[in-house]
Parts: sequence; structure tokens; C-alpha cells
Amino acid sequence: MAETPSRSVTISAIAAEAGVSAPTVSRVLNGRGDVAPETRERIENLLRLRGYRRRGSRGDGQRRGERIGLIDLVFNDLDSPWAVEIIRGVEDAAHGMDSGIAVSAIHRQASSTRKWLQNVRSRASDGAVLVTTDLDSELRSELEELHIPVVVIDPVGLSDLTVPTIGCTNWAGGLSATTHLIELGHRRIGFVAGRPELWCSRARLDGYRAGLETAGIEVDPELIAPGEFNYESGFRAGERLFDLDDPPTAVFAASDQMALGVYEALRQRGLRVPDDVSVVGFDDLPQARWSSPPLTTVRQPLDDMGRLAVRTLRRLMDSEEIESPRVELATELIVRDSTAPSPTATKK
Amino acid sequence: MAETPSRSVTISAIAAEAGVSAPTVSRVLNGRGDVAPETRERIENLLRLRGYRRRGSRGDGQRRGERIGLIDLVFNDLDSPWAVEIIRGVEDAAHGMDSGIAVSAIHRQASSTRKWLQNVRSRASDGAVLVTTDLDSELRSELEELHIPVVVIDPVGLSDLTVPTIGCTNWAGGLSATTHLIELGHRRIGFVAGRPELWCSRARLDGYRAGLETAGIEVDPELIAPGEFNYESGFRAGERLFDLDDPPTAVFAASDQMALGVYEALRQRGLRVPDDVSVVGFDDLPQARWSSPPLTTVRQPLDDMGRLAVRTLRRLMDSEEIESPRVELATELIVRDSTAPSPTATKK
Repeated sequence: MAETPSRSVTISAIAAEAGVSAPTVSRVLNGRGDVAPETRERIENLLRLRGYRRRGSRGDGQRRGERIGLIDLVFNDLDSPWAVEIIRGVEDAAHGMDSGIAVSAIHRQASSTRKWLQNVRSRASDGAVLVTTDLDSELRSELEELHIPVVVIDPVGLSDLTVPTIGCTNWAGGLSATTHLIELGHRRIGFVAGRPELWCSRARLDGYRAGLETAGIEVDPELIAPGEFNYESGFRAGERLFDLDDPPTAVFAASDQMALGVYEALRQRGLRVPDDVSVVGFDDLPQARWSSPPLTTVRQPLDDMGRLAVRTLRRLMDSEEIESPRVELATELIVRDSTAPSPTATKK
Repeated sequence: MAETPSRSVTISAIAAEAGVSAPTVSRVLNGRGDVAPETRERIENLLRLRGYRRRGSRGDGQRRGERIGLIDLVFNDLDSPWAVEIIRGVEDAAHGMDSGIAVSAIHRQASSTRKWLQNVRSRASDGAVLVTTDLDSELRSELEELHIPVVVIDPVGLSDLTVPTIGCTNWAGGLSATTHLIELGHRRIGFVAGRPELWCSRARLDGYRAGLETAGIEVDPELIAPGEFNYESGFRAGERLFDLDDPPTAVFAASDQMALGVYEALRQRGLRVPDDVSVVGFDDLPQARWSSPPLTTVRQPLDDMGRLAVRTLRRLMDSEEIESPRVELATELIVRDSTAPSPTATKK
């Protein structure tokens, strides 16, 4: 039927142990409704107990229709242009393996997560890519019951290694942005931080600190402004930094959107980028290129991260080994027009 | 099985006519592989001939698993922040009816379109929303064979009325942007056009012309610069307009991205927005709000257009009447900081 056995555990073996037919096990695996609840539960328990892993199709040798050909892609929210970059990479890689992608937003609500899990069960996706998701133990065990491979992009925290994660080198990115500003002669460099509960925020902040310390510049806590990754928080951080008695001559913001908020805070004060103040962002969203002046930023290869997530999923579907449960793709400093040598005198 | 009959044509009737069982018809409707090709073809012909329309679930009364719970959302490309606005609206409305969305990009290639059609057949979506798609007769007949309802967002041209379309009031938006600039005292107003093959571009241009003519201002062809909707073409159009002997004091660009390109052309000439030149965009993408200065623009309710597309699909799934095959949602002028009264003297 729709499933071929993984190397170790076969559907027939599960069926024999559960005292049902193999097609019934297939129906459970495909999330179909026509299996009695007690039977479903018995089969699901056995699948979990015996470690059954569904096997994906290679696309060529097998007939279409023998698998669903769908990968789930799950965001907390779809409110950032960030999302479309990841969607593009995931769609591109999935398309290459004749698969579609089902995009969901769970809106950080338990009810939405539950509904999503129901939907995934119903449509029997071949795998799921979760973006910036807090994979708590409850969600993890729910996903295990679905018997589909899962990969997390941009993990919230340092979770255990049972679920593969794909991130980028946030610390190195923070270091390269800060070093670039130091090389331009800046000494008072402000930092606009990201959401503190996210692991990537801490790594970018530590990269900033490491850059300063390597250059023998003392870290001034006044120059570190809190932010939430969005435009508004960047604007507020910019106001705060330029209200200081000794304001910075350069600002490194931990996201492009916050960097654009800093632009606006500067514009409202009549200060020019980069003549008066240099600004660096993080992400390299399309609008970094479209800002005026075009923004120097740390490129996070979001589309490549999406592609790699799909390739990793596919290896899991095929029960192949993956090299590492945690991969960080390289960030890259993209120098545009928002950074310039430090003005000799610090602006007051 | 997976289908409940539509009002007029039942699965049983199709099965009887084809000389097969009702579950076999269901399997064909669900795109499953286990039906002989000749049988599949016979059944598909009958389904088309008899005008069978699949019926969607209301989510509450029916058991989950009795439908696939998936809506296809198809873009030409996922290279614009525009896309995520529509994805958000479609996802939100689909979520509300317990459905997922499968997002695809067909990259304007026939091979990709064919692959997408295969995928849709395989996963048996409940319906499809196509964005800015040129629904030629071949694609339309392929879609008809799939027996799923289709709605087009932002149609390329004025297609016939067999497929419902959802757009926005492009002409009225062009008029309101131009009138706003005229009310601020501008008389030389440049226009940056969108891709000429798209219907929406022509409507926005005609709105601009109507605004000028209503105010008794002659349309100067020199002030109309070609564009492609993207940032780069806006930048080039800005350069062209401000190289004129008698340059404009205000520019209305037919997309936000082009407006941001105009910003950059102005910045490189040392001209300030809005002190020296006023700029208006079209779309109200998030980056319009995040630009410096925040951009005055014509809001196109992309997320609402996505929501309405799903609601229309649902009515089609339920074989309900729709009010009109073509709906245009209202645009709205959002005044921010990029427009100001005309400087008394025209800049040279």
C-alpha cells in the first residue's frame, strides 16, 4: 500500500503483533479516519515501541500517488518578511523532490498547535520543518506519535540532539559586524539586542562583545539597548542611544528591521547615515538592499537553511544517517552604503 | 468514503455509469494510484461530463480525515515580500476552516506548472488559489479535469468569468494618490509605471491620468517612466525623471518597491524626501512603514484578498452561489511622512 517497510521494522510485523491486517496499519500511518479508536491506539503504540520509521519515495523509481508528496512547514507567525525567504528555499528543494509544502502558522497558541497536529495527522505529510519553534517535551512526544521526521530551523534554545536543527553562525556574524565598524575607526558602537529568550540573540550579543574586547575596547552597558527584533523596538532603541550624553558613532542592530528603525530615529534627529552615524543590520532581508542608503548587514542564508532542512528531512525519510544533528550555516558580512569611517568628533 | 455527494451528481451515480464501485470513484477523486489507467480515464471523463463538484466539509459536523483538508496556493515566484502578505491571509482563513495550505511557485515555466498539476492530483487538494496567474485555456482545462474549485487573486488580464477573480481597485488607488499630491500643490508629478502586460498596471496609470485631467493638468509623457515593479526599475526611473530639464516635484510609483528605488535615486542626488520631492507608493507592504521616511502609499489589502479567496473557494466547495465572479476590494491612501506641500520653486 502507501508504505514500504523501513530497514528494521516492517508494517507486516506490526500488523501481526497488533492482530490486524497490513492495510489497517497503512491506514493508521496515513491518518485515515476509518480505523476504530482502540485499534488505532494499539497500532500507534506498537509503531512507537518498535521504532517504525516511514520510508520516503525517491521520486523516480516509485509511482506517484504512493506517497502524499507533502512537507509541512510551520512558523510561529507569518508576520515577518523573514518567513518568505525560508518558504522560498523550502519550496524550491521540495519542488526538486516532487513534493509540495504545507505552510502553517501556529500563532504561539496551544490550540493552534493542536489543530496543526490534527491536520498533519489527517494529511499524513512526509515530514515537517519547524521554524523558531520551542520544541517542548509535549510537542516532541506528539510529533513522535505522528512518526514523521522533523527538522527545526533556527532553534529557540539548545535543545537535546534528538531533533536535527539548522541555524547560522550567529556569534561569528555578530563578531564580523562589530569588527567591520572597529576597522572603520569607530570606538563607541551601540548594540540593539534581539528577543532575549532566543538563543540566536545571545549569540549575536556575545559576538559583539567579543569584537570589542578583542580590540581592547571596554564594553559600555549603556550602549546595549534592548530590542524585540521588530522595527518599532529598533526605533525606540535608536532614540535611547542618541539621547545619551555620549552617543555612539555607529550602531549594530541584531536584525535588519531594527536597523531600519534606527535609520528613522536618526532621520528624525536630522542625522545622516552614514555621514553622521554608521548602521549595520543582521539578516540581509530584501529590504536591506532596498533601504536608503542600502544597508550593510550580516547575511543569514535563510533560503539555503530552508533547502538544507528539506534535504535533511529527505535523508531521515530514507532512513539514512545525517552527519550532525546540529548544523550552522555560515553568515557573511555584506558591505553596502550605511557604514563609513567614523567622524573625527563624536556627535553630541 | 472520502467524499459526500454534491447536490446534483453523486459518486454512486458516477460509479453505476462507469460500471465500478463507489470506493473506486473515491480513489480517483483522491488521486490515489491504485486504479487502472483506463478505469481512471473513464471515471474522470464521466466526472467532467456530469459536472461533479466535490463537497467540502464544514469542519464541525463531519469527522476529520474524511477530506484532505488542504488548499493549494500558487505563485509565479516567491521573490517578493508581497507574497507573504497573501500567504498570511490565506493561511489565516484556511486555518479557520481546519484546512492547511500547500504553497507552490511555478516559476513561470510550463514544466513547473505540469509538476504542480501532478502534485495537486496526487494530494487531491480541496481547492486552489492562484496568484497573478495567466490562466490560459490549456491551464484552465487541466484544472477543470482536476474537479477542484479555483479562485484567482490579482488576475493578469480580463479573463472570462468562468473563474472567480479577486483584485483591488487599482484605478481608484491611482486616482487617490495623484489627487493627494495635487492637493499638496504639486503640478509636475512623475509616474513610475508597472509591468505593462499586467492589467493592474494599466489601471493605476489610468487613475494617475484621470487625477491630472480632473485638476486641469495636462499629462506630460516625459513624466511617465517605465518600470517593472521591482526596486531596480524604480531606481532607474527615478534617475530618468530627475535628469529631466524640468524634473517633477513629486513622484507616484505604481509599487512600494519602485518608490523605494526612487528614494535611493533622490538620496544619491542629495535630494530629501519629502522636503525636496514627495513620493507615493502602491501596495503598503510592511517595508513602506519601515522606510525612512515612512512611505505614503496606496494600501492594497493583500491579506484580506487572501482571506476572501479562501471564503470564495469554500462556497464553491459547498456548491453555493457566489455573488460575483469578479470582486475588487477597496484600496486606501495611507498618508505617512514622504509627502509634503510642493516647494514653491521647481528644483533644477
